[in-house]
Amino acid sequence: MHSHDLQGPAPDDPHPANPRAQIAGILRGRWSTRLFDPIHELFDDELTQILEAARWSPSAGNSQPWAFIVGRRDDPTHQRFVELLSRGNISWAPEASALILTLHQSAVERDSDLVLSDYAMYDLGQAAAHLTFQAQSMGLFVHQFAGFDHERAAEVFEVPNHWTVTTGIAIGRHANAEQVAVAPESLLERERTPRQRKEFAGFVFSERFGSPAGGWG
Amino acid sequence: MHSHDLQGPAPDDPHPANPRAQIAGILRGRWSTRLFDPIHELFDDELTQILEAARWSPSAGNSQPWAFIVGRRDDPTHQRFVELLSRGNISWAPEASALILTLHQSAVERDSDLVLSDYAMYDLGQAAAHLTFQAQSMGLFVHQFAGFDHERAAEVFEVPNHWTVTTGIAIGRHANAEQVAVAPESLLERERTPRQRKEFAGFVFSERFGSPAGGWG
Repeated sequence: MHSHDLQGPAPDDPHPANPRAQIAGILRGRWSTRLFDPIHELFDDELTQILEAARWSPSAGNSQPWAFIVGRRDDPTHQRFVELLSRGNISWAPEASALILTLHQSAVERDSDLVLSDYAMYDLGQAAAHLTFQAQSMGLFVHQFAGFDHERAAEVFEVPNHWTVTTGIAIGRHANAEQVAVAPESLLERERTPRQRKEFAGFVFSERFGSPAGGWG
Repeated sequence: MHSHDLQGPAPDDPHPANPRAQIAGILRGRWSTRLFDPIHELFDDELTQILEAARWSPSAGNSQPWAFIVGRRDDPTHQRFVELLSRGNISWAPEASALILTLHQSAVERDSDLVLSDYAMYDLGQAAAHLTFQAQSMGLFVHQFAGFDHERAAEVFEVPNHWTVTTGIAIGRHANAEQVAVAPESLLERERTPRQRKEFAGFVFSERFGSPAGGWG
């Protein structure tokens, strides 16, 4: 494990993006930054740890229906992925230390005795969350995105038909004060926008769908 | 926050289910137990904290396409859910302190201006992982499952057509030593089975799908 010189906001720092919720610091301090340190590099063992966390995520019947195509800044995988990014994401995602393309298994290979899981996307989402926690526990930030050319990604990365390109995951260190000072105003503004969520009454129910949970929640 | 008398295996304890992976303790110490303390109850503020964690999970365009129908042991929601469980799950899930039915938004209501997210299952999976981390940070255990009558669940819980019943989540305290001593052998055997996962070469790639990542991983 390498020590990190956390020049950007540490996960527990006060930040407008942080909810005041009574939840574990590593959850409260998580947000999808658009300000990555464009110099920071991930060591081999750091990437291994981050992907180990995804590996040990739970899945339906232990199907593990996930795959990750991993690029580090300026390597061939990263370069190919950057070319597929939407206009909205090209302004920040390439600066991250790693870009990971995620995939879930969406059909079964001919003559395979594998049983297809109906929960492949759900399980991939969980694996992405596990990876995120590991990265954050190492002082890193994660920003997931869907804005890229999925069809082209399947071609460029030679994805077989029974797998589906799903999301992108940017991982890196938060920009330091000097880097933030020269960041585009459009990114700074989004960075400062407080995170918003639905109230409990909109998604936490008891007895039946739509019925807000009673004494708590 | 209430203090917990952790009589069962604490998340960091040596346990056959724990991988030796170099990942954060809260990830390494997670497994889907089938041995819940059938006496333990969750306090209101504990359930609130657990669901707050799901609430602050990320989602595509902040769509938050998740919902949770929450029962505590022996309340009407719990009773209804227990009646829907598969034979495999009825042997352990009812003992947990809470059973949560998860749902994701799978279509748009007529006349709604909501945009449907293609990532609703992925995002629900992430929210379930966030909830899991919060519960574990409080010394609790989580076991997700899909084995129950989904169609009947949609009827019993009056789920609208544009939402899809997805998984169940059992949350509680691990059984203590006395409770473990009287647990059925079939559950104990599964509890002791070491967790297994694919090797990195099977799901971590670079440059193209199927090509194992080079110097690391």
